[in-house]
Amino acid sequence: MATGHTDPQRRERIIAATLDLIAEEGVAGVSHRKIATRAGVPLGSMTYHFDGIDEVLREAFRHFTDGFVELFDEHLAAPADPDQARAAVTDLIHALSDGSPRDLVLTQELYTLAARRPAYRQLTHTWMARSRSHLERHFDPDTARQLDALIEGLTLHRALDTEPHDRALTLEAVTRITTLAPRRP
Amino acid sequence: MATGHTDPQRRERIIAATLDLIAEEGVAGVSHRKIATRAGVPLGSMTYHFDGIDEVLREAFRHFTDGFVELFDEHLAAPADPDQARAAVTDLIHALSDGSPRDLVLTQELYTLAARRPAYRQLTHTWMARSRSHLERHFDPDTARQLDALIEGLTLHRALDTEPHDRALTLEAVTRITTLAPRRP
Repeated sequence: MATGHTDPQRRERIIAATLDLIAEEGVAGVSHRKIATRAGVPLGSMTYHFDGIDEVLREAFRHFTDGFVELFDEHLAAPADPDQARAAVTDLIHALSDGSPRDLVLTQELYTLAARRPAYRQLTHTWMARSRSHLERHFDPDTARQLDALIEGLTLHRALDTEPHDRALTLEAVTRITTLAPRRP
Repeated sequence: MATGHTDPQRRERIIAATLDLIAEEGVAGVSHRKIATRAGVPLGSMTYHFDGIDEVLREAFRHFTDGFVELFDEHLAAPADPDQARAAVTDLIHALSDGSPRDLVLTQELYTLAARRPAYRQLTHTWMARSRSHLERHFDPDTARQLDALIEGLTLHRALDTEPHDRALTLEAVTRITTLAPRRP
């Protein structure tokens, strides 16, 4: 039976406990001691598995963003014509913005951390690059970049607005941003 | 000389100190005592001017978002044809995302608070409604709503990405989202 430092579940438990704490108290509320208590591991286990609190936060957020990348993959992996791809992106936006309040809080905590400390922007940059690579299965790179920004904004506005956004409006926005604007003279 | 509770500058100083503290330590780091010390006002002045810490936070963020609404107004108040309006929105997005790191942090702190505590969504809802009313000077309400989400996403991605977004890409995105998609059979 695996116990002690070499128990791989300890690392996972530490990451899960870190995300729970961030969701409840924010990044500012996180400490080695609180995480160890919450994960039910000895304090020494923290320093065995992670090289400081920054690495704990980075690994926790990497694990968190992996879940979103999987959601992109689920919606966008299948071959699709442009209209099918637009419908899939629309469903993705609604899946993202109808997600748990916890996911919304953790996303904003990550952005706040990246806004506050540029060293964390590698995380947000990698996340954006991975999301875009999924969009690029169906759209050219410039369109994927614009669409990724639209997904971000619509997801946040749907989640935080007090008025409903219906699917038709989302589909219309996705269709517009993925349709070349007519050239002007 | 105005001094004491009735000094109107005290209220302003409290709001300014609150925003400074949120920018430095996050909403979690704010307390009556810290704000009073920072603002150089007696602790009693806090309870004279504000009905609890929630009102302090709400008034501070209202003051903060007023600045963004003014920026929308500066860029969008003048009459413009559709192409001029698109150029003005593009300039607005670059002004927003090239803004101070402090503004980026405060925006994310507000979204985190709204994500965590739905009672604060009235603030984000009012902010969105005011931004959209400026966009509606130039675009129909559905387009203004889609454009507002795009502005949000592009501003965040430009601010947090580690690769540059040039103006041509922003203008193209704004043009697409404000151009009716062709009807399909």
